[in-house]
Amino acid sequence: MEHYDFVAIGSGPAGQRAAIQAAKLGARVALIERRHRIGGVALHTGTIPSKTLREAILYLTGWRQRSFYGRSYRIKDEITADDLHQRLDITINHEMEILYDQFARNNVELIYGTASFDDPHCILTEADDGEIHRVTADKILIATGTRPRRPDDIPFDDMRILDADSVLKARTIPRSLTIIGAGVIGVEYAAMFNALGVDVTLVNEHETMLPFIDREIMEEFIHYQRENNMRLEMGEKITAVKHNGDSVTTELVSGRQITTEALIFAAGRIGCTSALRLENAGLQADDRHNLKVDKHYRTVVEHIYAAGDLIGFPSLASTSMEQGRQAALHALGHGGENSLQHIPYGIYAVPEISMIGMTEQQLREQNIAFEAGVARLRETARGQILGLHEGILKLLVAVDDQRILGVHVVGEGATELVHIGQAVMMMGGKLDYFVNTVFNYPTLAEAYKVAALDAWNRLSKKG
Amino acid sequence: MEHYDFVAIGSGPAGQRAAIQAAKLGARVALIERRHRIGGVALHTGTIPSKTLREAILYLTGWRQRSFYGRSYRIKDEITADDLHQRLDITINHEMEILYDQFARNNVELIYGTASFDDPHCILTEADDGEIHRVTADKILIATGTRPRRPDDIPFDDMRILDADSVLKARTIPRSLTIIGAGVIGVEYAAMFNALGVDVTLVNEHETMLPFIDREIMEEFIHYQRENNMRLEMGEKITAVKHNGDSVTTELVSGRQITTEALIFAAGRIGCTSALRLENAGLQADDRHNLKVDKHYRTVVEHIYAAGDLIGFPSLASTSMEQGRQAALHALGHGGENSLQHIPYGIYAVPEISMIGMTEQQLREQNIAFEAGVARLRETARGQILGLHEGILKLLVAVDDQRILGVHVVGEGATELVHIGQAVMMMGGKLDYFVNTVFNYPTLAEAYKVAALDAWNRLSKKG
Repeated sequence: MEHYDFVAIGSGPAGQRAAIQAAKLGARVALIERRHRIGGVALHTGTIPSKTLREAILYLTGWRQRSFYGRSYRIKDEITADDLHQRLDITINHEMEILYDQFARNNVELIYGTASFDDPHCILTEADDGEIHRVTADKILIATGTRPRRPDDIPFDDMRILDADSVLKARTIPRSLTIIGAGVIGVEYAAMFNALGVDVTLVNEHETMLPFIDREIMEEFIHYQRENNMRLEMGEKITAVKHNGDSVTTELVSGRQITTEALIFAAGRIGCTSALRLENAGLQADDRHNLKVDKHYRTVVEHIYAAGDLIGFPSLASTSMEQGRQAALHALGHGGENSLQHIPYGIYAVPEISMIGMTEQQLREQNIAFEAGVARLRETARGQILGLHEGILKLLVAVDDQRILGVHVVGEGATELVHIGQAVMMMGGKLDYFVNTVFNYPTLAEAYKVAALDAWNRLSKKG
Repeated sequence: MEHYDFVAIGSGPAGQRAAIQAAKLGARVALIERRHRIGGVALHTGTIPSKTLREAILYLTGWRQRSFYGRSYRIKDEITADDLHQRLDITINHEMEILYDQFARNNVELIYGTASFDDPHCILTEADDGEIHRVTADKILIATGTRPRRPDDIPFDDMRILDADSVLKARTIPRSLTIIGAGVIGVEYAAMFNALGVDVTLVNEHETMLPFIDREIMEEFIHYQRENNMRLEMGEKITAVKHNGDSVTTELVSGRQITTEALIFAAGRIGCTSALRLENAGLQADDRHNLKVDKHYRTVVEHIYAAGDLIGFPSLASTSMEQGRQAALHALGHGGENSLQHIPYGIYAVPEISMIGMTEQQLREQNIAFEAGVARLRETARGQILGLHEGILKLLVAVDDQRILGVHVVGEGATELVHIGQAVMMMGGKLDYFVNTVFNYPTLAEAYKVAALDAWNRLSKKG
């Protein structure tokens, strides 16, 4: 029986980074992966596939060029699912190579099979051929991620009625699509398929979607979606989803029916904890099969940590990586301040949404006096050159000392652009940084200056 | 005769920003423009047109997608010059509207005609119809820009033998092209036409091109150009350029001849000062028709300033804007520290090049102990998704205190990406910022983390 200093269960973003961080600290590390391919949901059915699909869709539909060449402009009249999958395979294989290489360089041992606890320090791994591998570890990280919730009353067939995982396996693109659930995954797919020219109806139980995003940014985003013919059914519960010949019918509480060629059920994910036999470790998952952790990502059992989607919001690959890294640092006695209070969120919809810091709503709740400065990306010369109609960048600034409280962007490049504001904010910068800085011309980054001048003018009127 | 507090001659980036800054300070301001259309070279024949052309070329050639769809992949088999011009007109008209609006909002008076000094405080403006307008001003900014140098022995016809201005008027795209001069303009056009599939030969008198850019970055850039079949003739003087039936022949000192369908002569620009009658203001231009200024952009005549391309390096729209703004601030008694020591440079070639701070060469010259960290953009997941083969990001870090000394990027998005490094550098940030920061995933910005970890590892080995 092998003994390790640190074992991570799950090779997605949280497990990967935890294992590598632990190894870099000199620990003897194993990483257990249930599938034959490392990378987790992020690499195989989540982040990377959906972002690759997104890029392919943007390109193949000529999305970025419509303002110049007309709305009906398309590069290929028939975009096939094969076009999209071809691109995806290249990317996934390359990312897997990088991971294998990182594990090899850092002496992270890979164990394939389904992990379960035998006792709080002992993990059994059952391989596909039934062989059992038993390891013990001083510290353990559970990073097994989540899988789509599949309620019994939804007649999934993974052809017409899909979940967020099976959507990527589909080989045909429907002409019309119902998406149930307006969380990050639902919103990203809705916007993507809408861009692809599919008639999309997005149904959500709550009135608001992505409530952690600044309202003004979301209103802009929703405006774009409606302009591009997305149908939104917010605050609508579903009563039934039924196969209906060659289509799918969704019945709403309000009595309305939506019939489309396909449906994606993206309302909720549940933690992959059922195989873990958590009870043998003294742990118990909640009703969403998730685990609760403290600020160091420690579960109620002191030497067992959990990180990634399994612990809930925000469930983004970037945050999961950092959670994993922090968990490993703490587990091996190097834990410091939890740096995750100010991390950016990136939503890879069409267009992208990204933010860091506080929203207007949070500032109002906390009674922090702020002023906002807003720029439209089309106000920049590069926005013009790129033919951008959409996109705003908003800075939230403290009235008292003009420090940056929040940076909010919707529009192409948002997930990259936000990092400039992040740097200024994290280094304690103030509004004058953006007013006085010379940016390359023409760039979208100039929107920071436009927004800063807007905030400056408003603050002057107040002062 | 009207009297103004501040008059700017030329409505390009330097004049624009100076006029608006002066007006914002409460001055009575006039802006004199020789053409009927405001905006200067930057808007009409320089920055904006060439960047719009660049974006159209990248798109229409499917440049960004070649790694996925094969090198021969092209969206339109026949890309016409009209395709490119259509796009350009939309952008220029919009940018002019923004300028007119800004001038109107700030009460900047526009005077059309060719300006010349009558005495150091009096400017005559001659309109096209011969009418003379006379204004006096307390402070004057000369921002008349530059025009292409057109040596007598080059038989320009603006059909086959073009300068950097007339290239944009060409309605046909040649199959082969010689470009003489590897300054910013020559390099940008060479890379752009090369991307468009034109057989480009770039001839330069000096062995190096763009000597202010870090050598490693330029070597990468040159490698990409050669891989894409650009022919480089560096350290080659030309002896003659001749029309040759339907083509143009360039003879080199080495005896070699280059025959192509067209030629762009982009070796040098000269200041537009000949009409100004500088002698009446007590000023004299140098042999390149440029003006010398002090660090406040003041000429030898105390109340007369000069800014923009007219004062030489770096001759970028972004720097000219800031020079104009600083000149206006100083002229109206608000001058502070010259903030232009750390500004980014952006070269809009294919791929883009951008930098801020010091190069390796400068650090060596000044004996500053540094370490470098390098990331390839393809090492990031987004680089993979975008199919990027090319591109590196390099951080130069001080060995003593790990502050950031320089940020150098070549690759798609370089002109935007550099601003993250700029923010950290300007705020006095150190290497650990990039090591510890959580970036959105997947983004190209993650290259900062990869480069920072590389520098970190090298520094650890030293320590």
